[in-house]
Amino acid sequence: MIIIMKMQAKTGQVDAIIKRLEKENLKVNISRGDERTIIGVIGDHRGIDKGALTRTGGVDRIVPVLRPFKLASRDFQPEDTKISLNGHAFGGDKVVIMAGPCSVESMDQMMETAVQVKEAGAHLLRGGAFKPRTSPYSFQGMGEEGLKIMADVRKETGLHIVTEIMAPDQVDLICKYADVLQIGTRNMQNYALLNAVGKTDKPVLLKRGMMSTIEELLMSAEYIMSNGNHKVILCERGIRTFEKYTRNTLDINAVPVLKELTHLPIVVDPSHATGKWTLVKAASKAAVAAGADGLIIEVHPNPAEAYSDGEQSLKPKRFAELMVEVKRVAQAVGRSV
Amino acid sequence: MIIIMKMQAKTGQVDAIIKRLEKENLKVNISRGDERTIIGVIGDHRGIDKGALTRTGGVDRIVPVLRPFKLASRDFQPEDTKISLNGHAFGGDKVVIMAGPCSVESMDQMMETAVQVKEAGAHLLRGGAFKPRTSPYSFQGMGEEGLKIMADVRKETGLHIVTEIMAPDQVDLICKYADVLQIGTRNMQNYALLNAVGKTDKPVLLKRGMMSTIEELLMSAEYIMSNGNHKVILCERGIRTFEKYTRNTLDINAVPVLKELTHLPIVVDPSHATGKWTLVKAASKAAVAAGADGLIIEVHPNPAEAYSDGEQSLKPKRFAELMVEVKRVAQAVGRSV
Amino acid sequence: MIIIMKMQAKTGQVDAIIKRLEKENLKVNISRGDERTIIGVIGDHRGIDKGALTRTGGVDRIVPVLRPFKLASRDFQPEDTKISLNGHAFGGDKVVIMAGPCSVESMDQMMETAVQVKEAGAHLLRGGAFKPRTSPYSFQGMGEEGLKIMADVRKETGLHIVTEIMAPDQVDLICKYADVLQIGTRNMQNYALLNAVGKTDKPVLLKRGMMSTIEELLMSAEYIMSNGNHKVILCERGIRTFEKYTRNTLDINAVPVLKELTHLPIVVDPSHATGKWTLVKAASKAAVAAGADGLIIEVHPNPAEAYSDGEQSLKPKRFAELMVEVKRVAQAVGRSV
Amino acid sequence: MIIIMKMQAKTGQVDAIIKRLEKENLKVNISRGDERTIIGVIGDHRGIDKGALTRTGGVDRIVPVLRPFKLASRDFQPEDTKISLNGHAFGGDKVVIMAGPCSVESMDQMMETAVQVKEAGAHLLRGGAFKPRTSPYSFQGMGEEGLKIMADVRKETGLHIVTEIMAPDQVDLICKYADVLQIGTRNMQNYALLNAVGKTDKPVLLKRGMMSTIEELLMSAEYIMSNGNHKVILCERGIRTFEKYTRNTLDINAVPVLKELTHLPIVVDPSHATGKWTLVKAASKAAVAAGADGLIIEVHPNPAEAYSDGEQSLKPKRFAELMVEVKRVAQAVGRSV
Repeated sequence: MIIIMKMQAKTGQVDAIIKRLEKENLKVNISRGDERTIIGVIGDHRGIDKGALTRTGGVDRIVPVLRPFKLASRDFQPEDTKISLNGHAFGGDKVVIMAGPCSVESMDQMMETAVQVKEAGAHLLRGGAFKPRTSPYSFQGMGEEGLKIMADVRKETGLHIVTEIMAPDQVDLICKYADVLQIGTRNMQNYALLNAVGKTDKPVLLKRGMMSTIEELLMSAEYIMSNGNHKVILCERGIRTFEKYTRNTLDINAVPVLKELTHLPIVVDPSHATGKWTLVKAASKAAVAAGADGLIIEVHPNPAEAYSDGEQSLKPKRFAELMVEVKRVAQAVGRSV
Repeated sequence: MIIIMKMQAKTGQVDAIIKRLEKENLKVNISRGDERTIIGVIGDHRGIDKGALTRTGGVDRIVPVLRPFKLASRDFQPEDTKISLNGHAFGGDKVVIMAGPCSVESMDQMMETAVQVKEAGAHLLRGGAFKPRTSPYSFQGMGEEGLKIMADVRKETGLHIVTEIMAPDQVDLICKYADVLQIGTRNMQNYALLNAVGKTDKPVLLKRGMMSTIEELLMSAEYIMSNGNHKVILCERGIRTFEKYTRNTLDINAVPVLKELTHLPIVVDPSHATGKWTLVKAASKAAVAAGADGLIIEVHPNPAEAYSDGEQSLKPKRFAELMVEVKRVAQAVGRSV
Repeated sequence: MIIIMKMQAKTGQVDAIIKRLEKENLKVNISRGDERTIIGVIGDHRGIDKGALTRTGGVDRIVPVLRPFKLASRDFQPEDTKISLNGHAFGGDKVVIMAGPCSVESMDQMMETAVQVKEAGAHLLRGGAFKPRTSPYSFQGMGEEGLKIMADVRKETGLHIVTEIMAPDQVDLICKYADVLQIGTRNMQNYALLNAVGKTDKPVLLKRGMMSTIEELLMSAEYIMSNGNHKVILCERGIRTFEKYTRNTLDINAVPVLKELTHLPIVVDPSHATGKWTLVKAASKAAVAAGADGLIIEVHPNPAEAYSDGEQSLKPKRFAELMVEVKRVAQAVGRSV
Repeated sequence: MIIIMKMQAKTGQVDAIIKRLEKENLKVNISRGDERTIIGVIGDHRGIDKGALTRTGGVDRIVPVLRPFKLASRDFQPEDTKISLNGHAFGGDKVVIMAGPCSVESMDQMMETAVQVKEAGAHLLRGGAFKPRTSPYSFQGMGEEGLKIMADVRKETGLHIVTEIMAPDQVDLICKYADVLQIGTRNMQNYALLNAVGKTDKPVLLKRGMMSTIEELLMSAEYIMSNGNHKVILCERGIRTFEKYTRNTLDINAVPVLKELTHLPIVVDPSHATGKWTLVKAASKAAVAAGADGLIIEVHPNPAEAYSDGEQSLKPKRFAELMVEVKRVAQAVGRSV
């Protein structure tokens, strides 16, 4: 942290700050220019409220030097984290593919989808039993019955399950059935929920808030990790911008940025990031070309009858075509699917 | 809902859609132009997934006509909702003022603040005992001890209490102490939490998500109301934009827009909406001039030592000056404070 | 400027930077911490490309200390700039009101509007003869004929004229007729145009780009001023955000922020900032309450037949009502209209 | 266009609208539901101001059906436009690569860059002689001298030239030297400039405004095309969002969206879209994987001494590495470089 004093700051004000920092066991390094004094603060000051410090007499601005995350940081752990699951590892050479419908609707729908996405090469099955919907009048998911359907389909197909958790009190129930716990975009800063999944030992698929910065995504990963669970898979799923032709804007830059900042695996959700099935293939190829460790794609046997997200769901046949092309791109960047 | 068919849509495709809608007990109204057929859908179709319908053969686009909220809508209830509390009514002639620190830090801090904001004319005391912080390493609030402090201060000063609730399982605890339950910006779409506070009979201060639309804010109010609790106070607290000089951008337009769309009271949080104490007075006056029913303002006896939000907190003396000016603006628009 | 070196930066790299800065006649101030070296740069380095410097070996990040604008800065000129025109001064005690249609359409339309807005208390007449339209198929303005109409109306009513200039080669023509030159939102960073109006002696109404930060707005003012013309009136007219209920989001915070940063007068355009006539009154009152020095409002005798911006134009009668309420708010904040 | 009347609209109001539309030679198609009347408008109504029509008595909302662009639309021309230049065609099977420095700084700098990017496989040379800079105190470009340098380098290397035009009165000068005219992001809606380049026969590289929608980009192309010049190359160069880690957010979705909407070629600028040289390679590969027809990349022999954009410029060696990887991705999606 660097504290830039005002031009007219007085010596007493500088001394007061130094005293306060030393009280917190921080060392300082003073640089007195002709115009301003600049105070470099040495040591871990992540617990200090910078806003408050700004209000101390004579302070102009405060500039952070350290990144606010630690466990999630590549400085802290240079080598990539690998999260293994049923023989597939997030964060390794292979691009891991998760596919399935937005909502679990019936055994038939799930079984048909699972068989077909598996045949096309998918590694995990996605499906929501508890659905966060903007409207209280929309379908809210099948609940535990949906989880049971997924578990039955797993037994049959061998595909492991990714499903969303919406509240801390669902942890026990969902852990009984799911292999990967998904935190949805609207819950990325639901800290009670982050703390709860951080106390489990299940891998967590943490979706970026549609309104959250990359740094905030990493801070939310830090919440989970600081509770002991280091198996966090980050997911870029599109951010909200002024552009309205697509449902969201896929922040493809986030993939290489996250690769620089963190050792955690990064997957992309091209379905939500575009909102239109015709764009999903191009977005998937772009994601893999940019270095994503995986994809999570919505597939439904009959999108026109889907209970949710029909507009962005692929039919199984289209998904199979996508897989062929994604594999070629993966090979071009030195990976496999 | 209006369904615009593609230019090349076939008669059979139009018929298939009509059949499907009639199965849902919706009436249709067909307009066959030279180029396209347009299907008007009559009846309440809020439960249908428009995305899925878009995938039906021959459909080009779907245009909603009805607003997706009902209980919160002014169409449903033309007259303003008034929420009374300790002799003050949100949504009436009076502009209701809530003031206090971001975090409860100690009895001394709360008592000193409460006495001074009351003297300046505030009607309720704000203060956080459970704090949603971006970093797991920041101060997370005093918890129940903080709630007890607030209750003691209420007994002494008579000021009722607004405090934040972060998880469904905190409902019983917080309802024991608080007069108004605050839902923070990061939890605006935490549906488990909305359902939980919707089952209480406490007024709920629902903060707009920092990147949520006005319509989404009303849909979240609808969640609470559809659970039986109609005492929802909406709060505009600034949205996230590309402008970085301020912490957020106060969407002042939201005040008259919400007055058109809903009967619920609307308050403004000028502290978070600006992020800098020097801007809070101007933002407060603008909010009242635009028609806000109340203000929630951060005040701290010593912002330079605050555990959180020091940069945007007013000292009690500044708050008193603000109140004098806000009162004048309130009178100019036919209201009192 | 503060240069933060990487943890692993070598002494030779620090020396190389110091040498380079000294070559540019800048003094440096070195602070060697345990972990990093920090270089404070003293002197005016606005001409150095910070991006390039970032690429010098060993540099981690560069933090600006000086603001990039000078002539527009309140540090440079603490007292408010007043721009007088026909007995009215932008930047003084009075709130200056500009009103009129989006486009000049006919003599009758302009005369009728001018007479009525003058009667309601407006000080200047706005109207566009050259129109920047998103579509090449939309009405592009009457051109010089429109300017002549405005000049005739000025003769009759005494109202001075604000009109838009779209290209450097229009300067001579428009200066022949206009009293204030308006730079539209899409041209805020049209530097050839800024340089051209900077060489005239007419007041310039500089609209904030819908996608521009407050700092960029001041940099564009700086372009005009660095050409010799210091008569710049800044205009907040709404920014583009994710919210789509309104045409733009009025950044009301920008008013007090600009009052802190610059001595130039600030006006608000509540018509474009909302895009809906029903919201214009509330936005106007908010602007004046927040400290705006003026308003520019679209008024049309028959909005339903307007060639442009009909949706956000007020009828003269509504404008007169607005003026009554705006006057009250102005008085409440110690100003007059 | 579909006009949705208010619930309480009267028959006379509907009749008035029909009359007005018929006056404009538009046919109507009335659908009277139980609750509302809906008027479908048939014919080309692009010249009508929808905002004004909204103000006609009884109207609730207007929904456009036609897209506002015509010449740029794929409906108007289904097959891809190919723009040939020196043996390379934008919009064909080959991915066209433009590379070079942000600013022309000297003959040595340009020659060294040109020779190296050509060797690595680039097809055109980029370089700015007239620079739109946020600050009037930054380097503004070498002007005509810069153009001459580029022309000399072309003679030597055979690489054709892309350079920016900033004002209508530069058309003759720049056309004397340049092969492709670039319109910068800040000038995307500088209509005087669009009209001017539309009257030349040079290919135009039209950069998307950093906060312009895809539809607005196509409307700006339409301006150029409606002046007779159909050789427009669209360029996605990143948009402005709340994310601040990168300079801009590459809207990768825009590539497949534009491929659906228009027949014009689309290139991507990964340098501005990221703002950091370490991210340029990943963004380039993503762009090609998503279907881009070309790339425009900043390369500088010594970024640490660049007059502008040093932070995002690649050294020639890094550019050569990028080319190797981009070629592989191009092949994977059935194209060549």
